[in-house]
Amino acid sequence: IAKEVAKLLEMKAQLGGDEGKHKFVLKTPKGTRDYSPKQMAIRERVFNAIVACFKRHGAEVIDTPVFELKETLTGKYGEDSKLIYDLKDQGGELLSLRYDLTVPFARYLAMNKITNIKRYHIAKVYRRDNPAMTRGRYREFYQCDFDIAGQFDPMIPDAECLKIVHEILSDLQLGDFLVKVNDRRVLDGMFAVCGVPDSKFRTICSSVDKLDKMPWEEVRSEMVGEKGLSPEAADRIGEYVRLHGGLDLIERLLQDPKLSQNQLAKEGLGDMKLLFEYLTLFGITGKISFDLSLARGLDYYTGVIFEAVLLQQENDHVEEPASVGSVAGGGRYDGLVGMFDPKGRKVPCVGVSIGIERIFSILEQRVEASEEKIRTTETQVLVASAQKKLLEERLKLISELWDAGIKAEVLYKKNPKLLNQLQYCEDTGIPLVAIVGEQELKDGVVKLRVVATREEVNVRRESLVEEIRMRTSQP
Amino acid sequence: IAKEVAKLLEMKAQLGGDEGKHKFVLKTPKGTRDYSPKQMAIRERVFNAIVACFKRHGAEVIDTPVFELKETLTGKYGEDSKLIYDLKDQGGELLSLRYDLTVPFARYLAMNKITNIKRYHIAKVYRRDNPAMTRGRYREFYQCDFDIAGQFDPMIPDAECLKIVHEILSDLQLGDFLVKVNDRRVLDGMFAVCGVPDSKFRTICSSVDKLDKMPWEEVRSEMVGEKGLSPEAADRIGEYVRLHGGLDLIERLLQDPKLSQNQLAKEGLGDMKLLFEYLTLFGITGKISFDLSLARGLDYYTGVIFEAVLLQQENDHVEEPASVGSVAGGGRYDGLVGMFDPKGRKVPCVGVSIGIERIFSILEQRVEASEEKIRTTETQVLVASAQKKLLEERLKLISELWDAGIKAEVLYKKNPKLLNQLQYCEDTGIPLVAIVGEQELKDGVVKLRVVATREEVNVRRESLVEEIRMRTSQP
Repeated sequence: IAKEVAKLLEMKAQLGGDEGKHKFVLKTPKGTRDYSPKQMAIRERVFNAIVACFKRHGAEVIDTPVFELKETLTGKYGEDSKLIYDLKDQGGELLSLRYDLTVPFARYLAMNKITNIKRYHIAKVYRRDNPAMTRGRYREFYQCDFDIAGQFDPMIPDAECLKIVHEILSDLQLGDFLVKVNDRRVLDGMFAVCGVPDSKFRTICSSVDKLDKMPWEEVRSEMVGEKGLSPEAADRIGEYVRLHGGLDLIERLLQDPKLSQNQLAKEGLGDMKLLFEYLTLFGITGKISFDLSLARGLDYYTGVIFEAVLLQQENDHVEEPASVGSVAGGGRYDGLVGMFDPKGRKVPCVGVSIGIERIFSILEQRVEASEEKIRTTETQVLVASAQKKLLEERLKLISELWDAGIKAEVLYKKNPKLLNQLQYCEDTGIPLVAIVGEQELKDGVVKLRVVATREEVNVRRESLVEEIRMRTSQP
Repeated sequence: IAKEVAKLLEMKAQLGGDEGKHKFVLKTPKGTRDYSPKQMAIRERVFNAIVACFKRHGAEVIDTPVFELKETLTGKYGEDSKLIYDLKDQGGELLSLRYDLTVPFARYLAMNKITNIKRYHIAKVYRRDNPAMTRGRYREFYQCDFDIAGQFDPMIPDAECLKIVHEILSDLQLGDFLVKVNDRRVLDGMFAVCGVPDSKFRTICSSVDKLDKMPWEEVRSEMVGEKGLSPEAADRIGEYVRLHGGLDLIERLLQDPKLSQNQLAKEGLGDMKLLFEYLTLFGITGKISFDLSLARGLDYYTGVIFEAVLLQQENDHVEEPASVGSVAGGGRYDGLVGMFDPKGRKVPCVGVSIGIERIFSILEQRVEASEEKIRTTETQVLVASAQKKLLEERLKLISELWDAGIKAEVLYKKNPKLLNQLQYCEDTGIPLVAIVGEQELKDGVVKLRVVATREEVNVRRESLVEEIRMRTSQP
């Protein structure tokens, strides 16, 4: 064995040496990937479910460029700004790749003076983050955003956003999930009554945001050690952030002697109560948890915030179900459009973003495990021939079929073997074969073969289109 | 009037002065644009027609990242390489935005050792070109690519690509069009027999490529003046590039005393003949022209090349129909995959790219002119109330409808006026209104109003979903 290992190591070293000679590295950029036809088929399914939901809720759709003026993104993302991709200065404007779809949306509203819209936007965004691709963390990834902009009565659009998260996650059958909800005003109020100085609100908020990945002890030591918060204030925060519940908890906190004295917290808790009343009407409070540890990283949130996590399904004996990561998030950002408007006019907004890369990963693994065969084309019929010298006849027939709207293929060979043509159908899932031969041409018919049953039937040429349609129509 | 103008100029100056104080410019980057919901509706129509055609021809779909390693794009685009967008070096790999979908496709094939695939890819590409947005020339624009990779019998996939262009342009009803076809081997053979030195083939090819925008005299002086070609060689080229026709011209050139002596030209003309035979079987030669002036800018083409142009429809008295610009193009590139394969293994490819920005512009203008009302949502019903204090009932009902898959909206107001709710339906094209009121709730019914006819009918609550489905199903 040792010898074999040594041999392998030597081969590896040689390969390594060879690589130096290559003119280039054959790969996609770090943190990105291609989608194969099979992956695209899964991706399409997910997109279709999400778009169907967005349309069910009456949303319009927009699109924006993949890059924005650099200054458009400046000052919107707090500590995460360092993750923005900039374009090289090749003369002209300074540009950056979009970091999310929310800031471009706000820029779009301000630029077009739109004060009222419900829209969705599905597109790729870019973050120079540390990728963990097996867990669905990429540098280029899709976001599916639904947002409601406009001056409306409180919590109605906010409740609809949560209903949408609930519908999509239920629809995709990803297993049990939980949507954590909080409010930036409750957080800020909490920081105030715990003795956090105003200037430290945002940075302490960033620390709280790490509670889903780090234990409290580590977050506490970041607050006290790195960010200079007093240990007493940190401990008081520690008391609050362990709280989660429903309407009962909201009621209790509305009576909390310290929190109820804070105007911001009171407003937030009042809206939270209203939100839960609407969620009760929607019948979805079972999967929603008011959670004081939820903070969300982005600077621009001003009210309700939320995040959906999938719950581990194995290990049911574990006391607290462990989360396998966030698959949707969002919240209210009433100040963002005003940052773009020359006169600072505000347009209140609330929205949700579905993070589908993680959902893809899960569904991809599930398809792999199930050995489900996924078709990557929709071809209804292969135009084939049983004898040689019939290429012209095959091309004439397939042209007729295409013009009639039939999805059809032909092998790109002058004289393919019938067996190879049938094998191609087996491999790609094409259900029908239309076979032309000398005799069929004389008789004005085409032999139609059903791949699954090997049944063959002669169909008059003028009825072929109708026959194929009938046999491949979805029930 | 002079006074008014002076006043306006003064105001403009003030605004200009103000702009200096703004923290930012509210715009999209040069050469890019947002798509509004209305524009998206038109875009979706075009995409649907194109995707339907690609699927009809049995194509799978893939996706690749928006940026590639810089070296992946190096040396593929000839004189156009200066138009590539680079990303800033922020540590790590050097990256560039993709310039087309063909080079990423070739990289994908080589990387995954795929030797046989028919795929489409619809995505944005990036070129730091001089934008002319009113004519559909952008720096960020969509390409819709269909390519066939694999070792096949000659000209069958090539003919299918032209059939696809013909189907899509017919389907979109853009008016009369012409597909110009040529072959790089015919061009190179022509350059050789005209006395162009080998080293100048590509750069003279670039000059010929400008013939659709510049008259021959200017192209000739570029060849002679800038590129140092002898006037005699240029004049000989001038004789050839004015030729265009069909099978007859191909036959004639196969007999051409000079051209027929050149091996490359002979091969190209032979394949061109075969291509036209297949196109005759497809019944599309009427819109295809073998045109010796067609060159295509990109370096990687090795065989058949083609380009589709829309023909001006007004001015029918003009002798030669003038082209309003290219809307599709493509060709054969048998060497590109080999440039990526470590062992240089070739995978022959042929493909077509539909340039849809110009198609959008045309269709957008047409929609504007026709005053056709385009719906930007698919909402089937608005859940409304006739009295105050019925928000809870509206939310309960809409939740039932959403859960049953009905596309429904509700105004985000506690007590909206019925008139405002009806007006919203008029404005957005929602066909039905489901009205809840005290009496209806007592009776267990919902009042369903047809917006167009103002007809109102009471529907039992348990039949409402079925009733809405029936009334909004497409015939």
